[in-house]
Amino acid sequence: MRASVLRGVRSIALAERPVPEPGPREVLVQVTSVGTCGSDAHYYEHGRIGPFVVEEPLVLGHEAGGVVVACGSEAARHAPGQRVAIEPGVPCFVCDQCRAGRYNLCRAMRFYATPPVDGAFCEYVAVHEEFAYAVPETISDDAAGLLEPLSVGIWACRKGRVAPGSRVLITGAGPIGLVAAQTARAFGATEIVVTDVNPRRLALAAELGATGTVDARQTAPAESGYEPDVLLECSGVPSAAIGGIRSVGRAGRVVLVGMGGDELALPLSHVQNFEIELTGTFRYANTWPTAIALAASGAVDLDRLVTHRFGLAEVEQALTVASHDDTAVKAVVRPQE
Amino acid sequence: MRASVLRGVRSIALAERPVPEPGPREVLVQVTSVGTCGSDAHYYEHGRIGPFVVEEPLVLGHEAGGVVVACGSEAARHAPGQRVAIEPGVPCFVCDQCRAGRYNLCRAMRFYATPPVDGAFCEYVAVHEEFAYAVPETISDDAAGLLEPLSVGIWACRKGRVAPGSRVLITGAGPIGLVAAQTARAFGATEIVVTDVNPRRLALAAELGATGTVDARQTAPAESGYEPDVLLECSGVPSAAIGGIRSVGRAGRVVLVGMGGDELALPLSHVQNFEIELTGTFRYANTWPTAIALAASGAVDLDRLVTHRFGLAEVEQALTVASHDDTAVKAVVRPQE
Amino acid sequence: MRASVLRGVRSIALAERPVPEPGPREVLVQVTSVGTCGSDAHYYEHGRIGPFVVEEPLVLGHEAGGVVVACGSEAARHAPGQRVAIEPGVPCFVCDQCRAGRYNLCRAMRFYATPPVDGAFCEYVAVHEEFAYAVPETISDDAAGLLEPLSVGIWACRKGRVAPGSRVLITGAGPIGLVAAQTARAFGATEIVVTDVNPRRLALAAELGATGTVDARQTAPAESGYEPDVLLECSGVPSAAIGGIRSVGRAGRVVLVGMGGDELALPLSHVQNFEIELTGTFRYANTWPTAIALAASGAVDLDRLVTHRFGLAEVEQALTVASHDDTAVKAVVRPQE
Amino acid sequence: MRASVLRGVRSIALAERPVPEPGPREVLVQVTSVGTCGSDAHYYEHGRIGPFVVEEPLVLGHEAGGVVVACGSEAARHAPGQRVAIEPGVPCFVCDQCRAGRYNLCRAMRFYATPPVDGAFCEYVAVHEEFAYAVPETISDDAAGLLEPLSVGIWACRKGRVAPGSRVLITGAGPIGLVAAQTARAFGATEIVVTDVNPRRLALAAELGATGTVDARQTAPAESGYEPDVLLECSGVPSAAIGGIRSVGRAGRVVLVGMGGDELALPLSHVQNFEIELTGTFRYANTWPTAIALAASGAVDLDRLVTHRFGLAEVEQALTVASHDDTAVKAVVRPQE
Repeated sequence: MRASVLRGVRSIALAERPVPEPGPREVLVQVTSVGTCGSDAHYYEHGRIGPFVVEEPLVLGHEAGGVVVACGSEAARHAPGQRVAIEPGVPCFVCDQCRAGRYNLCRAMRFYATPPVDGAFCEYVAVHEEFAYAVPETISDDAAGLLEPLSVGIWACRKGRVAPGSRVLITGAGPIGLVAAQTARAFGATEIVVTDVNPRRLALAAELGATGTVDARQTAPAESGYEPDVLLECSGVPSAAIGGIRSVGRAGRVVLVGMGGDELALPLSHVQNFEIELTGTFRYANTWPTAIALAASGAVDLDRLVTHRFGLAEVEQALTVASHDDTAVKAVVRPQE
Repeated sequence: MRASVLRGVRSIALAERPVPEPGPREVLVQVTSVGTCGSDAHYYEHGRIGPFVVEEPLVLGHEAGGVVVACGSEAARHAPGQRVAIEPGVPCFVCDQCRAGRYNLCRAMRFYATPPVDGAFCEYVAVHEEFAYAVPETISDDAAGLLEPLSVGIWACRKGRVAPGSRVLITGAGPIGLVAAQTARAFGATEIVVTDVNPRRLALAAELGATGTVDARQTAPAESGYEPDVLLECSGVPSAAIGGIRSVGRAGRVVLVGMGGDELALPLSHVQNFEIELTGTFRYANTWPTAIALAASGAVDLDRLVTHRFGLAEVEQALTVASHDDTAVKAVVRPQE
Repeated sequence: MRASVLRGVRSIALAERPVPEPGPREVLVQVTSVGTCGSDAHYYEHGRIGPFVVEEPLVLGHEAGGVVVACGSEAARHAPGQRVAIEPGVPCFVCDQCRAGRYNLCRAMRFYATPPVDGAFCEYVAVHEEFAYAVPETISDDAAGLLEPLSVGIWACRKGRVAPGSRVLITGAGPIGLVAAQTARAFGATEIVVTDVNPRRLALAAELGATGTVDARQTAPAESGYEPDVLLECSGVPSAAIGGIRSVGRAGRVVLVGMGGDELALPLSHVQNFEIELTGTFRYANTWPTAIALAASGAVDLDRLVTHRFGLAEVEQALTVASHDDTAVKAVVRPQE
Repeated sequence: MRASVLRGVRSIALAERPVPEPGPREVLVQVTSVGTCGSDAHYYEHGRIGPFVVEEPLVLGHEAGGVVVACGSEAARHAPGQRVAIEPGVPCFVCDQCRAGRYNLCRAMRFYATPPVDGAFCEYVAVHEEFAYAVPETISDDAAGLLEPLSVGIWACRKGRVAPGSRVLITGAGPIGLVAAQTARAFGATEIVVTDVNPRRLALAAELGATGTVDARQTAPAESGYEPDVLLECSGVPSAAIGGIRSVGRAGRVVLVGMGGDELALPLSHVQNFEIELTGTFRYANTWPTAIALAASGAVDLDRLVTHRFGLAEVEQALTVASHDDTAVKAVVRPQE
């Protein structure tokens, strides 16, 4: 099969790879759409993310949907022809974290596009049958892949205990901020303010459910007078995170989703005086059923995020389009086209 | 002022009463709309609800909205002219239950239309300024009053931990079941099945957001094959409650809202084998801000529930219309008309 | 190896069985002590528990400790010679319940001594290496096995949210009630009242940490004036359960541990008026590390429960001793003696 | 009556003040013992804590116990002669924070020894009858006052969800760290490691229930290999906080109790990768009943903390003894001696 392989910093090329052989509990999935993510672009640019270093040629891509084409010897969940969304990280299942329901924290997690595990910018992938989820016809191929970033938004809202009537601040209107805004709305939040420095993205946030937007170049959150119950930090920009935290009200929650370096100058006395609860998120656990329900019901619109589509030979373009085209939100790769 | 007074079983008449004098932290509210509730009808029919016996003439009605017309000496929250919704039970504030945030369980609660505390079927009521909530113009007078039953639905969904993607069963499509269906949808539930014996009410449930309806005369919940995560029991009918409980899936929740006598034949082994969590609800706490947010955003439609309107002289008709008119859902009393 | 096999109602005999061959992730454990449980006695007396019917010869016993004597090809957690406690139910690990951390509710659970899965009244058992837990020398062989009923008590206290300062009522002073009393104390409860009809057991409860005891033949819980925050129902006696529930205070919790038939006459209006949360327990999940910590620290004393010890040829006596010797609390079987 | 009054930085003197007149729901308490706290010393040294500035003469002291000597016109909870512990902050009771059970976050809190509210270094204080708690004879006068710092420890353990089997790290073995260690043990923690730079205090920590101690001058927490579930930061020292946070394991909790300036260099990627939950604490809510239960049962020993006792004329010495006597842990003031 054809696969797009990262060979080194800023070096991606098509290569022939054997079609994976599904294990006993795995299904083989013909990939129809794979979203590109900031982490893919980061590996492409830097060859590493923190401790994860690309030392061997690596297939990127972890936001994937497709069609089951073959089933392992003990895999009975799906029949060939079933359209599925893929949860791209399979844990060990039996360690203390897995057994406590926190499989995202499993030390032995094997996650697509994270060295040395290959991802989905290719024609076929194998995955545990329980990590391939049947999707209805109302969910498009692209949306099936984008259930992955939607899961990030769901996880953030769960961690932040977003609930009906919540007042939410979302810093950053990139793809994650935009799914977070939609997810917050689906969780019942009635005030959802999104900040960014890109007016196009703020306009899209408003279209997708934000009740207010703030251009961060002009107004800091703390100055806006808005006192959210929950901050979903999706920008990875320290000043946005810090300003956002300072704006959160009593007993509020802060969820740090955006990656912003190793340290953050935490406004300690504000966190103490207001008893703010703060946490980071690391991927997600048990989110696909909810993601499918929200996408299928129309509560969130994932297709609206897709601004660019590329073929398997154009992964490099897909990973770099955002750097020179500020209309770009989410580029997807269609391996079969 | 004019007040509608219950003098004995099935005996209600208009009477002159003094306009209440607001206490220091109270506001005086001119009542514009008051919903009728099953508990009002029950006092009218039986003169008591459990240990609460009508021994003195009593003003019924506790689902009230109105306009602030005067403020107590220390009441600074609202200005005269402010439209407000009234939370009809004011607790002692300082006991262990109150201080733990469970003021609905306060032993010293004074609740409208519960002997010996008068309710709102009258022209004016006084209420603690913090239990009168400003409502925006997008919330009608009737809807302001119906924030009270909406609070019952919000409380039920909170107790049942209804969340995005939840599968909910609601037994009973009376006013509470109908607000519960809307509230469950606002909490993100993506499957909401409502059962009742009245096809009209089922049709209304479907219109208001139920994704499925079951005519309980024809199909028992357990036979429908539907396995909900959460049961919101709103019928008060033991067979509906029991059948509903038996249908709930593993780790599911059961919230018993409907009043159904002193005992219920609990399906013990099902509750144990599936580790179902069951609770009853007693009124609500801290729900008005959420209720206002959901009604103002359009997430719930309270006006759609109002089928009949009466003047203060017609309270008796308002309390009995449901018994002979099966199109009735919610009758409201308009004391100023 | 020798195994004690249940061949039919009230028919148990020693038989030769092949030593189990550990699977790749399993360890082979030489069994040193196995507690007898009410469920073992029930299978012996009736040949079934609810839907679980003994149709083939079955080895009973699921409260087991022992020593690792061999390891499967991929089992690296324990070295031979390691003393271990065995968690007797191994789930599928990958279903929705397992992945949510509720593996006790797994539909595909394989649990010792539950048809058709053999238990531990035998010389050797195989178990998943992650369900064999290393125990320190401070935990005796018998106590290693009795970490299983301790887990039931821990699970009950978790479900009931027993916390420092809690007032707990425990109905039933059998082995489960007695571990629950100790567990409640370890969870910080400062009032622990235990009821039973057996004065010896009440005396033992007092010795093990109950702060009060009630002879249920003389005083009903509701009459005692005690208003607990939490009821841990460990008797399986409906009148005890019902009386206990009626005594629970506002916002209290009820955990139904004891098996008491298919139905229970739930005091509905009390549950509603006091917003009592009620749940059943089905085994446990993620309890062994806590159980080991509590037993090793001396916070609970499991050896004190052991009143009788038998060899593998005497399983029948072990299962019946409680019926004619009211000093019996917990009989253990020592397969190597 | 005699009162010890702070008139300016490092200026405290006895003064005559009128005995307070209890309000309708208040009791008048003759103060028997008042602990000195770091905040008292800070006001003495600096004349302010953050935004709270001593502009008028102020009575310090907020860890108080005493005896009821008179009751307001509507105060029926206590009879004169009742020994009580005082919760020193009385909120407004009716705001959103109060009604949600978070009265410690009330914007209108009136808290002893916080300008402009006087504290308890005097002969008599008035307090809301529901904020005076009857204490049994098993709780000494000094311990009655020290239920206040015990409440800080209880609150920290609740926020950190310390539970049976928890592994806890406590940074700082001052009075708060020492009560936190005892509280963690009472909450069932089985590993409690305390760090400090003062070997005497570490020895006292070990005596009071720490299972391990670390001299922070020699070993950083991260180097010790200990991976706690919960960090209770009680030192206010940034390096201790940061090192402690870095040592916390997956899904761990961090509770920042110690005051350590306005900012903290949060180890962001660790918090994200391990999904650590972090919060600050601001006083406490609903802790006295638990504190009394733990002190009365002997689960915590407050008297052991008292190293120095002073009369009302010696408050200055009480506030400064810790600066020159490293055996000092807790100095108390006895206004009647």
